[in-house]
Amino acid sequence: MPLKNTQIVSAAQTKFGSLDMSLREMFAEAVDKATVEAGVPKSEIQAAFVGTFIPEMLVHQGHTAPLLLDYAGLRGLPATRHEAACASGATALRAGIMAIESGFYDTVLVAGAEKMTSVTTNEATEALAAAADDQFESSVGLTFPGVFAIAAVAHMQKYGTTEEDMARVSVKAHKNASTNPLAQFQKEITLEKAMTPRYVAWPLKLFDCSPISDGAAALVLTSTEKAKQYTDDSVSVIGTGQASASMNLADRRELTSFEASVVASKNAYKMAGLSADDMDFAVVHDCFTIAEIIASEDIGFFEPGKGAEAVKEGVTALDGDRPINPMGGLKAVGHPVGATGVKQASVVYKEIIGAAGPNQIAKHDTGIMHNFGGTGASCVVNIFRRSDA
Amino acid sequence: MPLKNTQIVSAAQTKFGSLDMSLREMFAEAVDKATVEAGVPKSEIQAAFVGTFIPEMLVHQGHTAPLLLDYAGLRGLPATRHEAACASGATALRAGIMAIESGFYDTVLVAGAEKMTSVTTNEATEALAAAADDQFESSVGLTFPGVFAIAAVAHMQKYGTTEEDMARVSVKAHKNASTNPLAQFQKEITLEKAMTPRYVAWPLKLFDCSPISDGAAALVLTSTEKAKQYTDDSVSVIGTGQASASMNLADRRELTSFEASVVASKNAYKMAGLSADDMDFAVVHDCFTIAEIIASEDIGFFEPGKGAEAVKEGVTALDGDRPINPMGGLKAVGHPVGATGVKQASVVYKEIIGAAGPNQIAKHDTGIMHNFGGTGASCVVNIFRRSDA
Repeated sequence: MPLKNTQIVSAAQTKFGSLDMSLREMFAEAVDKATVEAGVPKSEIQAAFVGTFIPEMLVHQGHTAPLLLDYAGLRGLPATRHEAACASGATALRAGIMAIESGFYDTVLVAGAEKMTSVTTNEATEALAAAADDQFESSVGLTFPGVFAIAAVAHMQKYGTTEEDMARVSVKAHKNASTNPLAQFQKEITLEKAMTPRYVAWPLKLFDCSPISDGAAALVLTSTEKAKQYTDDSVSVIGTGQASASMNLADRRELTSFEASVVASKNAYKMAGLSADDMDFAVVHDCFTIAEIIASEDIGFFEPGKGAEAVKEGVTALDGDRPINPMGGLKAVGHPVGATGVKQASVVYKEIIGAAGPNQIAKHDTGIMHNFGGTGASCVVNIFRRSDA
Repeated sequence: MPLKNTQIVSAAQTKFGSLDMSLREMFAEAVDKATVEAGVPKSEIQAAFVGTFIPEMLVHQGHTAPLLLDYAGLRGLPATRHEAACASGATALRAGIMAIESGFYDTVLVAGAEKMTSVTTNEATEALAAAADDQFESSVGLTFPGVFAIAAVAHMQKYGTTEEDMARVSVKAHKNASTNPLAQFQKEITLEKAMTPRYVAWPLKLFDCSPISDGAAALVLTSTEKAKQYTDDSVSVIGTGQASASMNLADRRELTSFEASVVASKNAYKMAGLSADDMDFAVVHDCFTIAEIIASEDIGFFEPGKGAEAVKEGVTALDGDRPINPMGGLKAVGHPVGATGVKQASVVYKEIIGAAGPNQIAKHDTGIMHNFGGTGASCVVNIFRRSDA
């Protein structure tokens, strides 16, 4: 069934980075920006869908939805926390979409946040490992840099992808983020710097890895009828897809493509009645540089094995034919896990309405976002389009 | 808007208790019982909505939805974990309801599970405390027995409720559970035993507290059109409400009623076009005996302050005029947190279709379930009715 009714009328994020703010403070800031500061009174919000990944281990706090709502001045609303590891934000968004499409609500808040610098980097890595299969992966020492290193090696072996190819993704991310005031790293890097052999898990080096970040993001969804009340610049949600896969990498048929990404994007395209060729740009889940290359193939932007070449040729650059992660991606903007999927939606929204400033893409009517969790055991793909397109 | 389209076509739970099974094994058993063993082929399930509260701290595992689905033979489906502390199960159910009502899917799985005996009782109490406000409550030593003891004292002061009144809730729960083969405690207790002064947090004694439990529950929702394909005995979801409140008890206007329960039940009644008087029975969240008394008042079964009297007069007994927790409640059946809301729905379903065996209520066309999280910072209330009623 095609989606008919859901519009994004505002979207915002806090600065990402190591912030001197608590989880609840960041969340409240993002909500304020996406509501009152964007012309949507808080009194209009009827329900909230919240993405957080692992606040239990990072800030010793579960049951985050009512707590964060309260601090954002929205005490009392129906509010649930949605979790699918690094795809938590997009699963909250998808729940919000269903809430609008079902007719339950006219106006809802979707928000995500994570406070990660409250613990040491080792503790954060340990907490993130809860997204892998504890019985077969994390308990035997396989944490996420290692898991994605396995995927990188497989891609190198099968397609000849090189460390330099991956480093180029990082250079592009930092270039795009250099003009994004909300990015954790607003600094270009050279290919030589990206190739600095500070290995985290061979072949992945420091600059292949997204950072530990604090941050929050929020957006407001409304029914089409209601949208006009808030803005002439709304963005339609025209397709959404979600899929899962085995948690354990050992159970996958292949390591150079993530099945959940392929299925989720196929379903999103089908719902939208469009194909990858109809997308003007993409925002994909680049938790590691190899993840962006694989995602660009999995969502059909490039043939399997051709993602690295596209980066090399500048096709995915801000001024390329098929821009990917135009604001800087997880790599350079930061990756406060629960916020990421919501922030990705916010990037697509801003590009589509032409509010991306120095990061504005030339052709920006239709965009796709790809948010995945773990080593792709969860994936959500959404397609947005200018409402008057 | 009234709900028109969602039916429960099957529901099941594992035995609750200290089980020699892992989280994934229990989940798979509940799913098998609610699908293949109930005549719903797994191949018909299109998406899954999973409730778990705090597997991160109990079994060192996040990202539970795809993992559990895989072990239940449903690898690949769209699957999100929903968390709202002890209301996690019912928030997953509510998401499933929206998924059907929105037209996204015809047939979905809703399931919840928690493995709690993997840690010590102290560790479990610490993990459960993540449902309270870490900044103002849990970090200063206020865990859940203490929080509900505060509510009990307030109720005693305002309404004259006694320790014996609370003990009677426990006696009723154990009586009902004595004929429930899936209950953790299948043994009647005397009022004298319930009054044994083993205080956990005065005035709450050992028998006022629900236990630490392992267990899982699952149910299948379908559209009305699809339901006939599986059973002639489906149950309609006719109303649902959800609300939140401040996490911190200190921010509440009153302690003898939980505002989120009042709002969620009002919204559920409104959606169903019915009132409390139209309900034949209720399944409420009796994590502590005082919680059942307060819930019975909050959902409108009894006037504020009259809940204890109703228990004393046998009104809420299995053969009373307004039975509450006919299978034994959290107190005696057990409380594997993520499973609880789904198990509650399963109890209402079984009573309505007349499959509750020795625990069958005489008048059972319409039932209400009340599942809440934390000290009522989250609450979900659902109303179900015989499809041909």
